[in-house]
Amino acid sequence: MAHYSAPIEDFLFLLHDVFAVEHRALPGFDTLTPDVTRAVLEGVAAFYEDVVFPLNATGDIEGAHLVDGKVITPAGFRRAYEQLVQSGWNRLAIPEDVGGFGFPPIISNMIAEIAASANSAFTMYSALAPVAVAVLSKFGPTWLGEAAVPHLVSGCWTSTMCLTEPNCGTDLRLMKSKAVAQADGSYRLSGTKMFISGGDHDMADNIVHLVLAKLPDESGRYPDRIDAVNLFAVPKLAFEAGTGKTTGPNGVSIGSIEHKMGLKANATCVLNFDDAIAWRLAPRDRSEGRASGMAGMFHVMNHARLGTGIAAVGYAVVPFQSAAAYARERRAGRAPGGGKDPGHTADLLADQPDVRRLLLESASFIEGARAAYLWASVLQSEADSDTDSERTAIARDLLQLFTPVFKAYFSDKGFEASNACLQVFGGHGYIRDQGIEQYVRDGRVLQIFEGANGVQAHDLVVRRLSADGGRAVRTFFDHMSAFVDGQREIAEMAPFSTGLEQALSHLEAALDWLNANGRANPATAAGVAYDILTLFGISAVAFIWARIARSALDNLESGEGNPAFLRRKLVLARIWMERQVPLAAGLSTRVAQGSEAILQFDTRAL
Amino acid sequence: MAHYSAPIEDFLFLLHDVFAVEHRALPGFDTLTPDVTRAVLEGVAAFYEDVVFPLNATGDIEGAHLVDGKVITPAGFRRAYEQLVQSGWNRLAIPEDVGGFGFPPIISNMIAEIAASANSAFTMYSALAPVAVAVLSKFGPTWLGEAAVPHLVSGCWTSTMCLTEPNCGTDLRLMKSKAVAQADGSYRLSGTKMFISGGDHDMADNIVHLVLAKLPDESGRYPDRIDAVNLFAVPKLAFEAGTGKTTGPNGVSIGSIEHKMGLKANATCVLNFDDAIAWRLAPRDRSEGRASGMAGMFHVMNHARLGTGIAAVGYAVVPFQSAAAYARERRAGRAPGGGKDPGHTADLLADQPDVRRLLLESASFIEGARAAYLWASVLQSEADSDTDSERTAIARDLLQLFTPVFKAYFSDKGFEASNACLQVFGGHGYIRDQGIEQYVRDGRVLQIFEGANGVQAHDLVVRRLSADGGRAVRTFFDHMSAFVDGQREIAEMAPFSTGLEQALSHLEAALDWLNANGRANPATAAGVAYDILTLFGISAVAFIWARIARSALDNLESGEGNPAFLRRKLVLARIWMERQVPLAAGLSTRVAQGSEAILQFDTRAL
Repeated sequence: MAHYSAPIEDFLFLLHDVFAVEHRALPGFDTLTPDVTRAVLEGVAAFYEDVVFPLNATGDIEGAHLVDGKVITPAGFRRAYEQLVQSGWNRLAIPEDVGGFGFPPIISNMIAEIAASANSAFTMYSALAPVAVAVLSKFGPTWLGEAAVPHLVSGCWTSTMCLTEPNCGTDLRLMKSKAVAQADGSYRLSGTKMFISGGDHDMADNIVHLVLAKLPDESGRYPDRIDAVNLFAVPKLAFEAGTGKTTGPNGVSIGSIEHKMGLKANATCVLNFDDAIAWRLAPRDRSEGRASGMAGMFHVMNHARLGTGIAAVGYAVVPFQSAAAYARERRAGRAPGGGKDPGHTADLLADQPDVRRLLLESASFIEGARAAYLWASVLQSEADSDTDSERTAIARDLLQLFTPVFKAYFSDKGFEASNACLQVFGGHGYIRDQGIEQYVRDGRVLQIFEGANGVQAHDLVVRRLSADGGRAVRTFFDHMSAFVDGQREIAEMAPFSTGLEQALSHLEAALDWLNANGRANPATAAGVAYDILTLFGISAVAFIWARIARSALDNLESGEGNPAFLRRKLVLARIWMERQVPLAAGLSTRVAQGSEAILQFDTRAL
Repeated sequence: MAHYSAPIEDFLFLLHDVFAVEHRALPGFDTLTPDVTRAVLEGVAAFYEDVVFPLNATGDIEGAHLVDGKVITPAGFRRAYEQLVQSGWNRLAIPEDVGGFGFPPIISNMIAEIAASANSAFTMYSALAPVAVAVLSKFGPTWLGEAAVPHLVSGCWTSTMCLTEPNCGTDLRLMKSKAVAQADGSYRLSGTKMFISGGDHDMADNIVHLVLAKLPDESGRYPDRIDAVNLFAVPKLAFEAGTGKTTGPNGVSIGSIEHKMGLKANATCVLNFDDAIAWRLAPRDRSEGRASGMAGMFHVMNHARLGTGIAAVGYAVVPFQSAAAYARERRAGRAPGGGKDPGHTADLLADQPDVRRLLLESASFIEGARAAYLWASVLQSEADSDTDSERTAIARDLLQLFTPVFKAYFSDKGFEASNACLQVFGGHGYIRDQGIEQYVRDGRVLQIFEGANGVQAHDLVVRRLSADGGRAVRTFFDHMSAFVDGQREIAEMAPFSTGLEQALSHLEAALDWLNANGRANPATAAGVAYDILTLFGISAVAFIWARIARSALDNLESGEGNPAFLRRKLVLARIWMERQVPLAAGLSTRVAQGSEAILQFDTRAL
């Protein structure tokens, strides 16, 4: 059976040894002492391991159901959500001034990983509430924020993001949902939205849907242009302005729920909006810069993209832990080169080199990607701090690159890791009762969620790399070079620095090819975009493994920490350099082949 | 919705233009004129497209059920099986002397691909019958073959392979099932087998289980040694010796059926054998060489391995065809570098370079792998023909390598292709009604079936590469070199020959490293085995694409065939060379990093 134990020691090592969070001059970081972070992680882990994880397999079997127009969640979900809300773990990173605990995003991101490991279908019902709090605090009418935010913070209300329509997902210009302004400043919104995760449920009193819809232009038409699209708040139930007390239905009905490959316990709804009361979420502060109606949406989307990358790490953890345990128990065959356990009829699966390969490549991804998203979490805090510093500029540049890269690359590699761990079980991995195949089915969606991975690659290569004259890329390479230069005196760092340099040289070669060939031809650039995204992913994780290796070597030298834990990290770092970085050579070679064959192919002959 | 159209034109091109089957001096090949093969393919296609494919999605939803100890197949399966048996498509490749049509394996292998595309869960119930016919014709008591074979040929009986037990799958030494010899020459067999595909059903009158079990040694014990394992035939229902008329139950009961990730319409049974009447399937002809009780088993296994590779091609076809159709209909965004269809608000998905990449890489795998298994089918006929010729020796050498490579590499790449095609649909691909996610779930098992892919890699690298002093590898490279040498005068072949040579050079570098480092250390060899298997896969498909390219160029020059079809093949060949061969560089580099990090890792720290 699948089992899950939150990786508390790894989190503490990363937080305090690698990122030294408590010594960083960033909002809320001074409180992140090892005592505090351990207490938080142990509390969160106990809740998710004991209460939420056991509902993951049962929820998959039972699924969510639509009964009399309402979604019924699987047995135990309501009660577990009550406990979550009582525990307060849902509001750790919500600002103190609106009733949260004011921890920085690095804390909520760790919890997001744990929650994804334990039961993503359950987690997704309420995961958007903190984002809705942030959006409603900054966008739309002040009274709306004041009425809705306390309920979202307390967990009495949840939130969804309504973007996709039957006719469009990626291309929002084609959207048909419309909003009509009313005399009182509200709007009436009509249209059909689909693929709305947690679009209805029985776990909370109300749902604030964040809905994209078009406003008419001056001639009263709804043009197929992105600037017609605006973000609105549409509550499932109408409510009183002052108190948020619900007063009855609001023209939002559930058309159907989808039968899906996975995440069966999370209702994916078709939502019909019929003249529903809505409020436009325009920037309250004109100085916000992007005055478009999409500003709030970008806030949600960037959060959701990194969140998808984090979930991808979380989804792979249970298959990995379960497969590692299985490989340490199950015996089959003899290890090549002579048996390891002559006292037994057969050796452990864990003694077979190819099983070790599957497990260790998975661990090297999981623990590298975990460190990478925690680094991105630090960058999030830096990017939001004092706006004029160089540190802030660097953080914003790096996040520009990492947001699409971590979303896409981690969801690809996480799916690969879950499949590798399923493979360790042989036929048993294919059986539902073992609990592993569910993680493969559930995790498959992360390559699609929040913009399919190909869209992320396009966004990275066609837009972000060339933004501001390519500044973000220069920042990235400068940051990498500075690190490598700082390791030259340390002999033990050589294999890790060399691995990182190799990854960077392959990435650089691909970018050089892109600059020479893709500038004048966006289709050529788009054709190699996916490989370039993957090269960024390999390189970013190589960097973070080199950084981890440095911390591990420092700790080993100073005698701090558990030597076995630290040596294990050094081997996993080496495995990344030896087994992922060589693939970068192949990808870079492939980029240089160009896209001509793909572009010239006759569409009708597909 | 998913749709399927059997690739008849591709089959005919491969059969007659690439492999020129009707001109080969091989048993049964002289009848394979284009008229005959077209007639067979059109008949088979009509049956599988119209009758069997529509039951695939409904079968997945309904599943197989165990009711009162018997398996009930989904609605429509019984009727479709009746039609299959009436049509005779199930016995095209069964020898004429036992009631079949005597076509060579290349015909049944094509049908196997079509059947896997249309509905693998349905197909698997009866797929082993022709193999059982071959085994019972050569192994075990003559009267048994005479009684059982006619029913297997007619389709009134089906067959299963019973290998795995709760305690062992890969390591057959650990098996607990036992057989006790009886005075009349029969045996009584007891034990529990699991993961028995089609282990029971309501589609035929009887099932002949081919069961592995141990015979006692001289001291009456059942040792944990492979030489104790023998193959037995155990019918579900006992029958009269002369006629095969069933007479009642035979100590075989269904313990349970599994809930699985996919293939839900095929019952995966736990079978309990309690003192069941059994007959040992020892070689009837002593000159067979391998006189072990496993000889019949090897026959089944080698057939099943190539069959798994063929199914992997078939599973990817429906996702590909469906995704290609979707990409030619659905509009989203603008193609980079300016819109393709200014008359529409958006361009086709098929105009997005990254969507083209997903589709064309899938097509390049599917059509290359199809050609490769048809080549292997020719080799099967060559390997079984006059035993002393050089041609036979070459065919046997190549099949030695290709059996594990095609099983593992094609199931890996097929899963990748199905996932790539799911990705083209975005969120719609994740929804059951679209019919694509089922192929991903179903296809995942092929990486596990018939020996997990890691076991195939181990078999290839640790056993087959070094067998007979490495003769098979030399044969492989000689065969490749001879082809490349033959193309030197043809300028248009340069890109394809170069691609093939690059793939081979990367493979050769990896094998050189293996020879230098893995000979003395089997664990080191096992640690790099998977990458070497993948390198063989890339190279073998590169070879076959070069061969296809040569045929396409010849036809274009001579004006034979459809030029659009032939030029399409040339682009797909180029895509293999440009997009898969570069990955071989990365894999070869990785092999040279060795396995030390993986081998040194402390198992307890997993």
